[in-house]
Amino acid sequence: MATAAETAAMREAIALAARGLGRTRPNPVVGCVVLDASGEVAGSGWHQRAGGPHAEIHALRAAGERARGGTALVTLEPCDHTGRTGPCSRALIEAGVRRVVHAVADPTDQATGGADTLRAAGVDVEHGLLEREAADVNAAWLTAARLGRPHVTWKYAASLDGRTAAADGTSRWITSPEARADVHRLRATCDAVLVGSGTARTDDPHLAVRGIPGAPQPLRVVLDTEGTAVRGGARVLDDAAPTLVALADDAPAPAHGAELLRLPRAAHGGLDLTALLAALYARDVRGILLEGGARLAGAFVAAGYTDRVVGYLAPVLLGAGPAALTDAGIPTLTAALRLDVRDSTRLGPDLRITAVPTTAPKER
Amino acid sequence: MATAAETAAMREAIALAARGLGRTRPNPVVGCVVLDASGEVAGSGWHQRAGGPHAEIHALRAAGERARGGTALVTLEPCDHTGRTGPCSRALIEAGVRRVVHAVADPTDQATGGADTLRAAGVDVEHGLLEREAADVNAAWLTAARLGRPHVTWKYAASLDGRTAAADGTSRWITSPEARADVHRLRATCDAVLVGSGTARTDDPHLAVRGIPGAPQPLRVVLDTEGTAVRGGARVLDDAAPTLVALADDAPAPAHGAELLRLPRAAHGGLDLTALLAALYARDVRGILLEGGARLAGAFVAAGYTDRVVGYLAPVLLGAGPAALTDAGIPTLTAALRLDVRDSTRLGPDLRITAVPTTAPKER
Repeated sequence: MATAAETAAMREAIALAARGLGRTRPNPVVGCVVLDASGEVAGSGWHQRAGGPHAEIHALRAAGERARGGTALVTLEPCDHTGRTGPCSRALIEAGVRRVVHAVADPTDQATGGADTLRAAGVDVEHGLLEREAADVNAAWLTAARLGRPHVTWKYAASLDGRTAAADGTSRWITSPEARADVHRLRATCDAVLVGSGTARTDDPHLAVRGIPGAPQPLRVVLDTEGTAVRGGARVLDDAAPTLVALADDAPAPAHGAELLRLPRAAHGGLDLTALLAALYARDVRGILLEGGARLAGAFVAAGYTDRVVGYLAPVLLGAGPAALTDAGIPTLTAALRLDVRDSTRLGPDLRITAVPTTAPKER
Repeated sequence: MATAAETAAMREAIALAARGLGRTRPNPVVGCVVLDASGEVAGSGWHQRAGGPHAEIHALRAAGERARGGTALVTLEPCDHTGRTGPCSRALIEAGVRRVVHAVADPTDQATGGADTLRAAGVDVEHGLLEREAADVNAAWLTAARLGRPHVTWKYAASLDGRTAAADGTSRWITSPEARADVHRLRATCDAVLVGSGTARTDDPHLAVRGIPGAPQPLRVVLDTEGTAVRGGARVLDDAAPTLVALADDAPAPAHGAELLRLPRAAHGGLDLTALLAALYARDVRGILLEGGARLAGAFVAAGYTDRVVGYLAPVLLGAGPAALTDAGIPTLTAALRLDVRDSTRLGPDLRITAVPTTAPKER
């Protein structure tokens, strides 16, 4: 059983892990807090970037000799392999840590076994403390590790009656500055941001993170099946972040100089989303933020590629205008995508609702 | 300045007032707590039904001699007139109450002046403690008193993407049993429940309060412009609650035996809502719950007759199906009905969002 001090330390470790979001691909985010033998915090750290030290190493360095006889709280099972850095299981043993509590077991073949190595060395190992919270912060990487495809978050902003624009198309701004700032924070936690050709054509979105000094920039991806929606001078083509334009195998090459990703067409129009996810996974993308529009979101829902929904609901009634989600392939209520609300938070006048499907996610 | 004990007592008085919702028309709901000279609760009560004793009388009776030198906390300014019961100002003076704190001033001509009478008798009178909370519980009556028309709450239940049914029309059940039970509690706090002909035809709704023993039953009102939507055997025609069928002046009389309310037609179709509200006001209705459908709600929004919105949002995605609100006469975003979220509460898996317009309500 974990002590209150250990639970508090794990909570802190989860918060530390979150600082790595958007920066560690293709690695997980991990946080670690080391308590000394008397249960006081001796050191802490988080995995800051792929190729850099793991969270445990940062925390052990900060703790120094105080780690001896102490306890390490880690959000993910310590690794047992030598990759770009040495195995954390070995580092914990050498530091003289008496006990290791990790929240989530490592599901990957290559890293797993850290707990066994620790136990074999006489370290007391416990698993599962705040597991759900720790899994939530690492949802993108865990989904990718388990399913072999990136984790997809669909984000939308709508009126209380589900409209993303008024009857005449005006949509700036339905949501508040607070909600829009939060979207930038959300973008910064994802590896890639996706929009469809309709959104590219209508909104000319920028898709980079703005207003957060030092924030990581996601890969901007436009699904431009025919290669005609993104034109020279589009905001997405500036140098604020890398950009990838996905288009059909047989579409004519566009004149703009953006990097292209050729994909097969889907049977019912648009691009093959399975191929898209595989291509982005191969580029180390683990977390995708799907930002628009309604039909693209519908295609992801229909394909079973929706792992999280973040809705920004403005307390506004419109009574007309485009819906937030269309063509999701749901003919009747029993076929609806049922979600579990994980959080609802006020952002200025608006509400942000975060929900995840109640059914198991679809593999690649 | 109110003491902490007085604030706590006013909070209790507001909760007591709420017990009268749905039972006191055309009177307000009022709660009263009497503290003795040492600040202890000596008695409390609420206005239970029109024609019965006012809240102050119930509380003074319960307090007995302990009211002398004490303080009365009342959610609404004590009345000063002799209606079906004597003036409460007089009763408070005779009981020897030293101080009266009321939350909301009485806006009506006939009842106002209670505070002046109390002051003239040497009673210390304070106004405004928890005014907003007390005004919220009495919103229907206060709106009716100020504007000369009933207060209108639009209630809807929808998926997270704003649909009230799936593509094939299935809608049972989008929301959870917890949310549906809450709708019955909401109905029981209103004087009348309204639906349009489309809802009457499609859903054959019952509209009475079920599952709450002893709950007051609202007047069930169907806006059946042509007199063809409600047919013999409709569930709304049973004897669970009174029923009124509103129809156009020139519509043929229907065969069912329900009470009819003849109204002029509106210029753009349907019935004249101003005439409807006037007729319901004349029947002592102060609070209306508008339950469906999307077009009727749109007509109320377009007319400026929306005082509160209660949305039950199910964490479900549909991507197709009817919208919660249509034809609200809003062409562009700057004309949207902007609301202020007053509350968001989890009800089982669902969210209930309560919001009120940020703009001043429209008079009759």
